[in-house]
Amino acid sequence: MIKRYASSTDVARLAGVSQSAVSRTYRPGASVSEETRRKVLAAADELGYRPSRIPQIMLTHRSHLVALVIGGMYNPFYSSVLEAFVARLQAEGWQPLLVHVDNDCAFDDVVPTLASYRVDAVVSALAILSDDSVRQLEQLRIPVIAFNASSFGDRVVSVSSDNVLAARLVADHLVARGARRLGLIAGLVESSAGRERQAGFTARAGELGVPVAIQAGGFRYEGGRAATRRLFEGPMAPDGIFAANDLMALGAIDALRVDLGLRVPDDVLVAGFDDIPSASWAAYDLTTVLQDAPRMVDEALRVLHSAAELTTARPGRIVVPPVLIIRGSTDRPVAPVQVA
Amino acid sequence: MIKRYASSTDVARLAGVSQSAVSRTYRPGASVSEETRRKVLAAADELGYRPSRIPQIMLTHRSHLVALVIGGMYNPFYSSVLEAFVARLQAEGWQPLLVHVDNDCAFDDVVPTLASYRVDAVVSALAILSDDSVRQLEQLRIPVIAFNASSFGDRVVSVSSDNVLAARLVADHLVARGARRLGLIAGLVESSAGRERQAGFTARAGELGVPVAIQAGGFRYEGGRAATRRLFEGPMAPDGIFAANDLMALGAIDALRVDLGLRVPDDVLVAGFDDIPSASWAAYDLTTVLQDAPRMVDEALRVLHSAAELTTARPGRIVVPPVLIIRGSTDRPVAPVQVA
Repeated sequence: MIKRYASSTDVARLAGVSQSAVSRTYRPGASVSEETRRKVLAAADELGYRPSRIPQIMLTHRSHLVALVIGGMYNPFYSSVLEAFVARLQAEGWQPLLVHVDNDCAFDDVVPTLASYRVDAVVSALAILSDDSVRQLEQLRIPVIAFNASSFGDRVVSVSSDNVLAARLVADHLVARGARRLGLIAGLVESSAGRERQAGFTARAGELGVPVAIQAGGFRYEGGRAATRRLFEGPMAPDGIFAANDLMALGAIDALRVDLGLRVPDDVLVAGFDDIPSASWAAYDLTTVLQDAPRMVDEALRVLHSAAELTTARPGRIVVPPVLIIRGSTDRPVAPVQVA
Repeated sequence: MIKRYASSTDVARLAGVSQSAVSRTYRPGASVSEETRRKVLAAADELGYRPSRIPQIMLTHRSHLVALVIGGMYNPFYSSVLEAFVARLQAEGWQPLLVHVDNDCAFDDVVPTLASYRVDAVVSALAILSDDSVRQLEQLRIPVIAFNASSFGDRVVSVSSDNVLAARLVADHLVARGARRLGLIAGLVESSAGRERQAGFTARAGELGVPVAIQAGGFRYEGGRAATRRLFEGPMAPDGIFAANDLMALGAIDALRVDLGLRVPDDVLVAGFDDIPSASWAAYDLTTVLQDAPRMVDEALRVLHSAAELTTARPGRIVVPPVLIIRGSTDRPVAPVQVA
């Protein structure tokens, strides 16, 4: 076995001091003579020694590791949340241990590994977190924070946008711009965020007396494009489409223009959800709901701090206000209703 | 201090057995009676006990942690590499510790943290890895693998596409489709991948006797869009544009169509690099160079395995063949040269 890292014993031997002198040199506030400190630092420099956090983890049961569970990074919203979250964790003295899950079954394998490193908390940035996965995470008896998921067991704090309110705002906006036959491109039924967006949109459309046709798009560009074609094969060709995320909305715009020869927004209005970078690209110029990722990260960090000395987070739900961003894909009223 | 994780001592006490019996229950191949094992597992279940890897890290100097350094996740190429890499690391018994750096200076803060967790190796998925950062990583005396970066110190293995060859193929393709005045949108001068793409493209264009005008686009959509407008303010309006990544190429297409009122590919051919998902979206249908991310991940894992028992990786460079993917943005010859 090759030793990659020099130990404090190696440093003590080279410096000709005790191991305790090495420890004291690196412990803030500990007493050590200037002469000893100089010898220790010179030996450490020669050996490339850096103090280990491992003994401290054994003693204190605090690893300062936070497990970040990811999956579905195909959605740029999650990669931007991930980057912001990692930067903040580091700045505040935690280190993220990254865990990838393909599907919920993978949690069976992952939980023992998380436990073996004694992580302080688990943060899920998954689009979907099933009840079963939550049960497994709860066995760890540590705080669990879920992005964009809601209403879970007793130990989970969720941080999400106000999906219901946001979807209601989108319905209001499309109808105000003249849409009278709405299409909804839903995400995955397993996603609570997707379900909430669907519920808010259909409820508000119902209040406004406007019918909604629904097709599933699976949260992906290709799914949104295919769902849009299916909407136009149905009995009610929509003049306003809301997709439960931006990737599907961009697919919808391409389906309308390229596959169906329609104009956006002149023939059909389109709105999405997330405000990923490509939503503002000139080819799309998509109206969407901004998910305030920096604010969501702030809230998650606040929970982590308050939970840091507790065995669990206080269960609950933190909802971040959404912002509707109106762009070219809905910036003119649609053409008057054509009677078929 | 609250103990989040039950210890083997807790389990031994509840089961009424020795701590050594608990250890033996969880050590593969160790001898323990069926009766004792049953008692231990029942107590462990009650307490939510899971074995810790921390003592093993102290003894063996192998943490099975691999530091993954990220930054610039705005480029979807890196988020897809990250996801693939994390999945593979986990499948093969490593756990990725994620490290975010905003810029090279941040490495000063990060290196001691990596060392404190005794990571087994460092993998950089940064667009840019400076010589100075490499020097800091080398102080760790552990293997360092860099994606998409080349030609570093004595301990670094780089894994990248053959950027020079790929850019030469793009120049050949654009000229074969009739381009006679080329524009190059360069990335960042600090990026070795960007420099190689520029070198390969300009060298091949020179061999073909075709002039190249160059503008920098900083690897971002907005930068590519602005660079394209600047190319058309210059004395030689290009009829074929190569952008050093897809994000800039998509910005170029939007600049041509929306800002300049030109057609792609009829008036100007456009090609990019990476094959990110949006490159194949109908609004763009971008010709590009596929970077074979799964193959690059394979190669990096191979290096990790071979380096696992060495203090350093064998320095060197692994180059993965590129594939030119021809799509609508170059699928017809451009219009004949207009004499200004």
